[in-house]
Formats: sequence, C-alpha cells, structure tokens
Amino acid sequence: MSEQIYIGVDLGGTSIKTGLCDQEGQLLKVIETPTQTDLGTEAVLNNIAASTRLIVEDSAYSWDQVMGIGAGIPGFMDFDEGFMHFSPNLPLTNVPIKNILEEKLGKTVIINNDANVAALGEAWSGAGKGVNILVCYTLGTGVGGGIIINGNILQGSSGMGGELGHMAIVPDLEAIQCGCGQMGCLETVASATGIIRMANDAVERGDRTMLVDVLHITAKDVFDAAKAGDETADRIIKRAAFYLGKSMATISVTINPNRFVIGGGVSNAGDIILKPVQEVFKKFAPLKAQENVEIVIAKLGNNAGVIGAAGLCLR
Amino acid sequence: MSEQIYIGVDLGGTSIKTGLCDQEGQLLKVIETPTQTDLGTEAVLNNIAASTRLIVEDSAYSWDQVMGIGAGIPGFMDFDEGFMHFSPNLPLTNVPIKNILEEKLGKTVIINNDANVAALGEAWSGAGKGVNILVCYTLGTGVGGGIIINGNILQGSSGMGGELGHMAIVPDLEAIQCGCGQMGCLETVASATGIIRMANDAVERGDRTMLVDVLHITAKDVFDAAKAGDETADRIIKRAAFYLGKSMATISVTINPNRFVIGGGVSNAGDIILKPVQEVFKKFAPLKAQENVEIVIAKLGNNAGVIGAAGLCLR
Repeated sequence: MSEQIYIGVDLGGTSIKTGLCDQEGQLLKVIETPTQTDLGTEAVLNNIAASTRLIVEDSAYSWDQVMGIGAGIPGFMDFDEGFMHFSPNLPLTNVPIKNILEEKLGKTVIINNDANVAALGEAWSGAGKGVNILVCYTLGTGVGGGIIINGNILQGSSGMGGELGHMAIVPDLEAIQCGCGQMGCLETVASATGIIRMANDAVERGDRTMLVDVLHITAKDVFDAAKAGDETADRIIKRAAFYLGKSMATISVTINPNRFVIGGGVSNAGDIILKPVQEVFKKFAPLKAQENVEIVIAKLGNNAGVIGAAGLCLR
Repeated sequence: MSEQIYIGVDLGGTSIKTGLCDQEGQLLKVIETPTQTDLGTEAVLNNIAASTRLIVEDSAYSWDQVMGIGAGIPGFMDFDEGFMHFSPNLPLTNVPIKNILEEKLGKTVIINNDANVAALGEAWSGAGKGVNILVCYTLGTGVGGGIIINGNILQGSSGMGGELGHMAIVPDLEAIQCGCGQMGCLETVASATGIIRMANDAVERGDRTMLVDVLHITAKDVFDAAKAGDETADRIIKRAAFYLGKSMATISVTINPNRFVIGGGVSNAGDIILKPVQEVFKKFAPLKAQENVEIVIAKLGNNAGVIGAAGLCLR
C-alpha cells in the first residue's frame, strides 16, 4: 500500500468529484458529492473541504498520509496565489480559494483550471504518460486545452497557455462569434455545442439529413447519423475535425509536441472524429513536424480531472 | 574587462560572421570572413575554425578566456548531437559539425538553427531581454521563428519548435504552395519573398500601382510605395501583417508569451508593418491573452545571430 496519497478535486457546477491517488497517478477511490452552488461561496468551499475528509475517512488511509490536495476548477485564476478571479458557473468570484482551503484543511492546496488539470492527468497516468511535450484537447460544451512540458503545465504569461478553444482558426468569411467575444474560435466548430449548432443550422436550412427527425439534437446524434451514412452529419463532423487538425498543425510548428490527446465527451465518438483529424494534420503540418507525432484519444475519461488535480501536488 | 568570453558564429552562404561576447551578451567585436562554399565541407569547417581563432588573436583576450563557441546555421540538425542532416545552401549534409569543430578547437561547440539563435540573441540582450516567454519572428527571404522560455530555446520533439514560417495560416482558397511543400504557410505571405510575389502578381494583373514602373521590385519598394499612398502596396502589406498578427493570436492561446519580437530585413520597415500587426492581434486574441503582451521590433539587427550563437554556450 502506498505510504503517501494525494487528493484531487474536480469541481463542477452540479457535483464535486473527489479522488484519492497514489504516487504513480493510480486512482484508488473516487466519490461524488453535491456542489450546492445555490447556497453560496462559503457552502461550496465547505463542501469541497468535507469531501476531502470524507474520502479519506472512507478509505484505508489516514489524513496524515495526505501529501496535498489539488483542485481543478473552471475559471480565470491566479495559479500561484490560488486566487479565483471569475468562475462562470460557480459562486467563486474574487475568492482566495487556496488560502481558505489550506486554513480549513491544514494541508497544501493547489488549484488550476479544469482543462489544464485534465491534461496533467493524461500526462501522469493516461494517454500522455511518458511524453515530454503533450497537448490535450477537451471537447465538451466548450473546447478546453492543456499543454504539459516535461510534467509541468504551461500556464503562459497571463494564464492563457493552452486555451486552445480560443484559437482564431476559422477564416473570416465562415467565422461566427464565440462566447468569449472573438470571432472564429476553434470552440465555435469543434465543441459539442458547435457540432449541435451546425446540425441545427443544417436542419433549419432544409439540408437533406435524418437529423430532421430528432427533437433535441445532441453531438452523439450527429455522430450516429454520420455512421449511418448521413452526408450532412458527415460534413459537419469533417468540418469540426478539419479545424481541430489544422490547429494541431499550427501547434506542431510552435511547440512541436510528441503527442496530441483528444478527450472530453466528443472524443467518445472515437475513430469517426480521430481519423479525419489525423488526415488534416498530415495535410497541413510539415513532414518533419509529423515525425513520431501521434494523435490519440484520451484514456482516463471522466477521471482525468481528479487524477490530474491530485497530480498538481507533485509539481 | 570580462574574464570569460563567448564566441558566436553566424554561418551564411556567403560569409561567416563571428563575434565575441561578454557574459551579459554585449558584443565586444565582430568580424566577417568568406564561407567559400564552393571549396566544400572541409574548407567551410576550416574557415569557421579559423574565424574563431582570428577574432581572438585580433582582440585583447586570450584563447584561454573562451568559455565556448556557438554557431547558428540554417538547416535541419540534431541539436544535442550537433549533427547537421541537411543545410539548403551549405555543403554540410550529414556532417557531425559539433564533433569536428570541437576536435579542431579544443572547446565546447554548440550549434542551433539561425532563427532560434537570433531569438536567443534578442532574449539575451535585445528586445526580449528579461522576458520569460518570448516569441521571435525573423522576416527575410523566408520567415524564421524562435521561442525562448526562461532563457532556453524551445526545440520541440523533432526540432520544429518555433518554425513559425510553416504555420498553415492562409485559408485554402487563398493558399499557395510553400517551398516546404505544404499549402498556405505564413512564409508565403509574410516573408520578403512573399511580399515581392504579391507585388509582381498585382503588376501582372494590371492593378493600379506605382510599382508598375519598378524593374525588379524589392520588399522595400513595396513599403516605400505604401508610404507614398499607393493603395495596392498598402493592401499587400496589410495582407502580410494580417497573417502575422493572426499567427500571433494563435500563439497567444498556445504558449501565451509576454512579448513578440519582429526582426529580419522586413522589420526595418518599422511602424508600417508593426501597427497593422498589432491591430490584427488585438482583433483575434482573447483579451486576457493580450494582457501585458507587447509586439515590438527587434533591437539587435544583423547582430542578433552572432550574439545568440555566443549565448548558446551559457545554456
């Protein structure tokens, strides 16, 4: 049994996922408790603290064996200070999360954003294990990203390192506005939301597609339709894949990673998204920047966040 | 007087530029000698070695004070081994440059490519001094690039880190083929060659421009025409600036640098290229990735290469 354990917290708007990891990034135990955002800042922070105590109490480990607590939280924060400036769906605006949790728990607490933490999880014990320069995409409601160089998260000068969803990759004439205010962000076409939007547009336009019979189209519906031979659905997925692959080609001559990992809900579609991304990457990346470069689907699924959060304490 | 000195070599197809630097990256002396590529591999390597001995003999320093020799060489190489695979304009294909020069000179020799070395020079004592995450563009015949993170060159997994000229940034419908074989590389529009090509195309097409009277159009002619109010020339420069600025926006959500430096011959044009680049960057980069980010013109001019090459020995 591992002597030292690490706690990872993946904070969402609905639930707090809390995991216990050993030193190798193996997930020993995971629990889920309600976030209770409606009860306000204090309650959410108390719930996080309670979840970390609960998971240890319910395990064969003691609180003394906990070497640190990491938390992945969506939002804009000062990583070093552990100060959250703004979190879109959580009552955590201008909250010194690290200080408060450290006081409550008597342990080192490190926070980072959800996409960086998921990337760190894949780097530690998932699809990016042992890779020097790793780039992870999380394709969900939005497009998150994280870059891990030699085991460390690349935060950048203002915390915008690896914010791949906001890469202006769609050319002007095709661009629509992103939630961030800019035009043509990758997120507008490669997120589940983007895929659903393109499908709804196609249906409204009257494009020939079996999606016309679906009441509330999901990204999975679009993938299923494409697998069943629907050309409109296929075109939508190819478009998402095109800009994903092109963004990878761009990154390949910037940081020239060894591996790209695609995670998040959309990545469950598997080869139908992976193959066209690989093809587009091959088309646009210089040959030498393709050498030994792999594009793969993430391995840790929904647990990447808790595992990566636990991993924050090892950096 | 500095106790320890560093030699930097900037190897070109016509001449070898050799410089002497102190520990702070101040250039103490610089000489230029012929490369003599027509005499073959052995001669070129002997000429490099001779230039390093010559510059020290002609100075107030002794050979014993030389702490190391760095060389910036255009081409594809294994940086750690100092082995050149292929250099487009030099007879250095499959040459273990580092080993040969170390044997000839009895000093540590480190080689890297010309654009990385120019970036390192600007980071050491030029426009990127004191900057944690620096991205440099060298706009000349091609578009070179170099990324310096905490004083170290980001080489990437296969040496393609910072190869910004080969970013596929021009959309398909406007893209032309780059010398590298890919379509739509930044180099096709933002290099001097790209600017000249666009000007020649405009003249051939019959666009209204004063450039029609120029026999052999140079990039400087295009900038001069734009400054004189020529709308066609202005459009060409705006197009180069557009893709440069857009590539920076892309990089701002990848590595999120503190500063972008534009060097190389084209950067001599100054504000007429800098201002539109800054405007496009502002349009496409998320606000938070613009925080404290500066886009500036390089400071070291043609000496960035020798200074950066000397700096290789300090890493």
